[in-house]
Parts: sequence; C-alpha cells; structure tokens
Amino acid sequence: MFEALLEEAGVLKRILDAVKELVNQANVSFSPTGITIHSMDSSCVALLHLVLCDDGFQHFRCDASTVVGINFVTMSKILKGARNDDSVTIRKKDEDDFLTLILESKDGKDVVSFEMKEMDIDAESLGVPETEYEVTVSMDSASFQNKMRYLAQFGDAVTIEAEPSCVKFSVNGEQASGSISLRSSSSGDEDDGLDEGVKINRKNDVSLSFALRYLQTFTKATTLSNRVRLSLSNAVPLSVSYDIEGLGFITYYLAPKIDDDEDDEEDEEEEVEENVEDMDVKEEDDEEDM
Amino acid sequence: MFEALLEEAGVLKRILDAVKELVNQANVSFSPTGITIHSMDSSCVALLHLVLCDDGFQHFRCDASTVVGINFVTMSKILKGARNDDSVTIRKKDEDDFLTLILESKDGKDVVSFEMKEMDIDAESLGVPETEYEVTVSMDSASFQNKMRYLAQFGDAVTIEAEPSCVKFSVNGEQASGSISLRSSSSGDEDDGLDEGVKINRKNDVSLSFALRYLQTFTKATTLSNRVRLSLSNAVPLSVSYDIEGLGFITYYLAPKIDDDEDDEEDEEEEVEENVEDMDVKEEDDEEDM
Amino acid sequence: MFEALLEEAGVLKRILDAVKELVNQANVSFSPTGITIHSMDSSCVALLHLVLCDDGFQHFRCDASTVVGINFVTMSKILKGARNDDSVTIRKKDEDDFLTLILESKDGKDVVSFEMKEMDIDAESLGVPETEYEVTVSMDSASFQNKMRYLAQFGDAVTIEAEPSCVKFSVNGEQASGSISLRSSSSGDEDDGLDEGVKINRKNDVSLSFALRYLQTFTKATTLSNRVRLSLSNAVPLSVSYDIEGLGFITYYLAPKIDDDEDDEEDEEEEVEENVEDMDVKEEDDEEDM
Repeated sequence: MFEALLEEAGVLKRILDAVKELVNQANVSFSPTGITIHSMDSSCVALLHLVLCDDGFQHFRCDASTVVGINFVTMSKILKGARNDDSVTIRKKDEDDFLTLILESKDGKDVVSFEMKEMDIDAESLGVPETEYEVTVSMDSASFQNKMRYLAQFGDAVTIEAEPSCVKFSVNGEQASGSISLRSSSSGDEDDGLDEGVKINRKNDVSLSFALRYLQTFTKATTLSNRVRLSLSNAVPLSVSYDIEGLGFITYYLAPKIDDDEDDEEDEEEEVEENVEDMDVKEEDDEEDM
Repeated sequence: MFEALLEEAGVLKRILDAVKELVNQANVSFSPTGITIHSMDSSCVALLHLVLCDDGFQHFRCDASTVVGINFVTMSKILKGARNDDSVTIRKKDEDDFLTLILESKDGKDVVSFEMKEMDIDAESLGVPETEYEVTVSMDSASFQNKMRYLAQFGDAVTIEAEPSCVKFSVNGEQASGSISLRSSSSGDEDDGLDEGVKINRKNDVSLSFALRYLQTFTKATTLSNRVRLSLSNAVPLSVSYDIEGLGFITYYLAPKIDDDEDDEEDEEEEVEENVEDMDVKEEDDEEDM
Repeated sequence: MFEALLEEAGVLKRILDAVKELVNQANVSFSPTGITIHSMDSSCVALLHLVLCDDGFQHFRCDASTVVGINFVTMSKILKGARNDDSVTIRKKDEDDFLTLILESKDGKDVVSFEMKEMDIDAESLGVPETEYEVTVSMDSASFQNKMRYLAQFGDAVTIEAEPSCVKFSVNGEQASGSISLRSSSSGDEDDGLDEGVKINRKNDVSLSFALRYLQTFTKATTLSNRVRLSLSNAVPLSVSYDIEGLGFITYYLAPKIDDDEDDEEDEEEEVEENVEDMDVKEEDDEEDM
C-alpha cells in the first residue's frame, strides 16, 4: 500500500508539466523516503532526475518500496481536474494494477476520482552522473527561459562560456550570429541566500555547446522555481536544476555537442565517455535528425 | 414588415455564438410574439430550441408571421462590427429577399449596415419533446463547461447519474477511467431562487450516457447565463437549458447513447422511440462517425 | 562609419513590425540626415516609404551616405532580445559586410550583440508619388485596423467614399454586403491639433476600391501612432500614413483596383498610369492571384 497526500494540487500539476514534455512515461519509484524518477528522454539524449521527499507531503505512507510505470501525459490530464488549492491523493494498493488519483475541493463538495492504468515500461536503471563541476551559474529561471527561446530563433546550438564575472550564451546562425552576456551580481557562492541577478562560481574556463531544443524543454520547469542552477565542466553533461520548495528538486542532464571537425578533440571524446558513465553521449550526426 | 431593436448588441452576439456552432443555418420564425428557432444540427443528432420574446426587445414590430432562412455564421460575422453596447436593428421588408442588420454606436456617429441574403432551407417542422423529467440538476454554467471539456480528454461519452444528494459524471477511457462527483448544496427545488452550487431535484434513479462532443458544443451558451439546467429521464433525450435574461431561453436536446451489447434493452429502445416523438434517436453505430 | 543609438528599443521593434510584413528585405539608405526606406512589396503592388530623422536619435553619426541591404525579419528577431526600454545601437563600419546591433539594459548588466549579414538586393530606385490629394481622412488608427479586419471577413476589396461629413467603407460579399459609415467630428482641417474622432478634408467626390489584404498589412503600423491619415484622389494610389513621434513617419501607397467591366473607364486608366509615375498599377486580373 502506497498513499500520499498533497494539500496543494498546483505543485503536482507544475511538476508534471516539467516532466511530461521530456519524458512521456517512465518507471517511478515509491519508497518510504519519497518518490523518485530517473529517466532518459525517448531519444536517449537527455536525463531527468526528480526527487520528492516524503516529509514534503501532508500524508505519506509507503509499506514497501515499489516501482510503477506511469504515463505522465495521462496523469497531467487527470490533474487538470483540480484547482491549484484542491488536495490530491495518490494511492496504489498492492493488488491493484492501477494508480488511483483523488482530487478534492477544500469544501469537500467536488471530488474527482480516477484510476490510471499501470504501464509496463522496459527501462534499465540509470545512475545520475556525479561530478565536481568547474562552473555553476545561478540565475532567474524566467530570464533563462526567455534567453533560450530567443537564441533558438537563430540556430540549433548555444555555446555557454563562463568568465569570472560574466556568463555568455552565443549562437551561430545563417543570417545572424551573436551573443548574450550577463554580468554577475556577485562573484561569490551562488548559495549566499540572495535571490537576485546572476551568480557565478568558477574554478576553470569552460566553453561548451548544447542543443537548444533540449534546453528549451528543460525550461518547462520554470514555474517550479524562480531560480535555476546550471553546472558545467568540460566534456561532461550540463546539469540544469530547479528546486521544488519544501518538496525536492528536478534536475536535467544534457551531453555537450562535440564538433566533429576539430581533430584535436579525440582525447576529449574519450574523457566524455568515461565521465557520463551510463549516459549515452550523442554526437553531432545523431542529433541532427532530432 | 418585421423590425426589432435590441439596445445591447452584445446579447445577440452571445446568442449567435450559442447557436452557430451546432446549427450553421436554419429557418427562423418571426411572429408577433417573438423570434423562435427549432432546428436539428446538420448530423441530426441534437435539437436546438431558441425563444426570444417580443417584450424583451426595445422595439418590436411584426405585421405578419414569416419564416426566414438565416446563415448564423454570416450573421455572427456581421455582429462582430458592433461593440457590446451598440444597438442592433433587424429588419425584413416583405418584398426583400434579404435581411437588413443595422449596428449603431450610442453617439450615432458609427453606423454599420449590412444586407444578408435570405437562405432557402428545406427542413421539416419539428416539435419539441415535452417530458416530465425524473431528474433536474441546476448548476454553475462555467463549472459544467469546464467539467465536460475535462472529461472529453479521456473518452467520447459521459455517463450522468443522479443520487439524492450528488450528481456523478463518469467517463471510461483507454488510459484512465474516473468520475466527478458534485454534492448538492440543497436537495430542494432547483428554482428556489438561490443562484449557487448544485441543486438536484430527483424522483427516480437515472443513469444515462451522452456524446461529450455535443455537450461541449452546447456549452457555447455559457456566456448567456451563469446557470445551466440539465433535465433527464431514462431513455429520453437530455435537455440542457440556459435562460437569456429578460429575453427568453435556449435549450438543447440530445438523445442518450444506447449500448448495443445489452440484450435486455430492447424494451427501452421502443420506449425511446415513443418518447422522443419526431426526434431522431441515433444509436451507437451512427454516432461513431460523427 | 555609421552609428546610431536609440534609448528606447521598443520604437524600433514596432517600426520593424510595421515594415517586415509588407517588405521582407530592402535596401536601406543611411545618410547624414537620417535613415530612409523606399521599397515595393514582393508582389510589386504596394509601396512603403519610411523616414527616420537623424535628430530623433540620441546619437547619430554618418560619415558618408551608404546603402545597406537588410533582412527585416532577421532584424526583428534580433530586436526581440531587447526590453522596450533597453537601448539599441546600430553600427556599420565601412570595411564590414555586416550590420552590428547592440542591445543593452539600463543597468548595463545585460548586453546582446549580433552581427547581421548584409544582403545584396537588386532593386531599382523608386520615387514617391507626389500628389495634391482631393480627400484626406484622419482617424483613430486602432479603429481603422478593426474596420479593415472586419470588412475582410466578407470580401477581398473595400470601396472608400468620402462625403462632406462622412466617410464610408463598403464591401460586396457573396453572403452579405454592407458598409461602415463614420461621421466626422469636425469638417475642418484634420491637422487642427485635436486628436479624436474622424476628420475629413474634401475638395471633390472620391470613390475608390482597394485590396483589403494590403490595407490590413498596412495596419501593422497601428502601434506606432494612435492616428492614421488616408489620402485619396481618383485614379491615384491611396496613401496611408502614420507619424512616428519625434522620429519620422511611415507611409504606404496602394494603387486602386480598376473594374474591368466598366467600359467608360478607359480614360481613367490612362490617367492612372500618368499619376502613379514609376509605380506599377496592377489591374484586377493580376491581383486575383495575390
């Protein structure tokens, strides 16, 4: 028996919006310490890691750890029946082959109850890349979303470069090429409690390119937090992370684009394969038919 | 000669929005007591009944009853030229083969004048089913609209069941099945003057299924009234009715879906044919290619 | 070396919106007195004339007059990176084959810098028709936009007629035909300083028809000014003009539609060809495949 209650359905709606665009369906782990998802997207380029801690729920009971295959598109449709301040209960009895969702208005007069078929999803268990990053950038999440959407007008890839007091996003398009430079508000630790401007924590130079299409999908999590944290190291997947207040976090990983034209990058490519562990690093050719 | 003046064009715009989606064109009766439409939709599944009383108009003159074929899509386009507080005059001279619409701003400076071709529509005259309903449910019209849109995400049909203090809308979909239960605010007469919550008036059990596609079209009338009244009896068309304040009402009728798999329903089918009079009751097979 | 600075990028965004829909790309003249565009649209039916005076810019330097081929769609995309109150700098060094655009936030922390490839556009230099117009109508620009959009629902062409105290826009459609009549607020000069209502300045009768598709495109300039000025003479292109406060103006020209059915119009047609000078007057046949 698993049962969890959230008093504000709004947050679960926003979590599903942040998940379903990248990962339509995945195995979800229910355990006594919370709910977690580790999943590649369907084209196996990006990785999503979601953690919701048990003590963030108003009620949480998990008698035994279990894994349930969930279609997030369907689950998001069901959640649309809830106002943001309705409560939502997720229930899975051991003998059921479905997940029950119950949405209830504060006055108890409106009750929506749905049974969602459990999916049988064949996916290998994935580790999350653990890296000591050379650069972390913390910035306003809506600003990051706007800038990725803006640059995607001109080209497929963005190059991110961190200087001591400035982070630069550049794009190389057919009609126009250019960059956005954001100067940091402070060069100190991005976790100093201040919640404004751009904060850069940098040990070494970093210059990496990423597919804008994926970065734009990651920004579906913008409604979950007004801050986003980018973590970069050369030849290692970028981490894009959003806190979910009082509940956990969602982090996306994306392997950098590797330029086939540069011969002296062979060493780096090997390094990539070591660092991303079981994460599939796609090369330029593969990404072009995304 | 027919001539009618409404000082607020906005209400006629909303009426046309409520009509044109279901019935593109129909014969409209102009008589000394008002304007009426009785029309099937083009697939002959649903029936629309509109009544606008003469005394709801600021000026109303009808020398002799007449029937005019009107294209409501065109008429709605013409009405878009009016601000909500412009006046609208509808005029039909006996010798004209067109309807004249005049939209005039309050200060008299802007005048829009259109002649709309009369349509020659071949339609038999329809009676409106008169039934003593077993259940009536009165509820907030926007809430009804939201709930029909919500359920249509999961399946084609909704089953409506009335219990003494609760009305239940349920859907059976491929990925998920569920229901919305709305508890009544009072079990008294729905016409007790209170204009809030859900009110249920119930003599017998009722459980009927309807095509969500049609119910969603009916909710185009939501802008006409903040209340909607559902009237149900077993094996009789559902009535969905909206008052138009000071002017009349619009009522939609929809035959229930009949489950072919249940052999013991043959008696009921006959009863249907008696009750709906000249209204064509479509069976599951016919509706599937809607 | 050319360099110009505008402190409010918003106005340049709106100018590009007003240009790019009709003219995707064109040669732009940079001279010590300002920036100008003369260009036909791609189907050679309408003419656009934009003038931005040097003293409307906060900084303006032009060492020598030059002509640069610019793609306005790309330029508009780049400008989207600016908030309305960001500054924008346009720079062209003599040796560069690109235009540089720099968008900077008021606090100097966000800088967007783009290089836009210069286009090689083969276009003959155009003169602007100079005419003493028989009728000028000044009216609210948003009202003009709404009315053109409204009439386009019914037909392809609008006929504009000016009476001493009234301007009439009429359309002849398959389903409905009608007109909008706007009474003037004053019959005096439209430049009397008052900024409200409709003002008509009329020497002779005028009745001309124009393609609504083009008039609708011209109204993309509505955000530049709350007034629009229409200037008409029989058998001469219509001029539709918007002031850009403190900076210049944008004027569109459109040749009237000529009715092939009327035999007695041959004289007028010849007059047309004289009056529009180097402007290509399209006849009904050509416009039908627009």
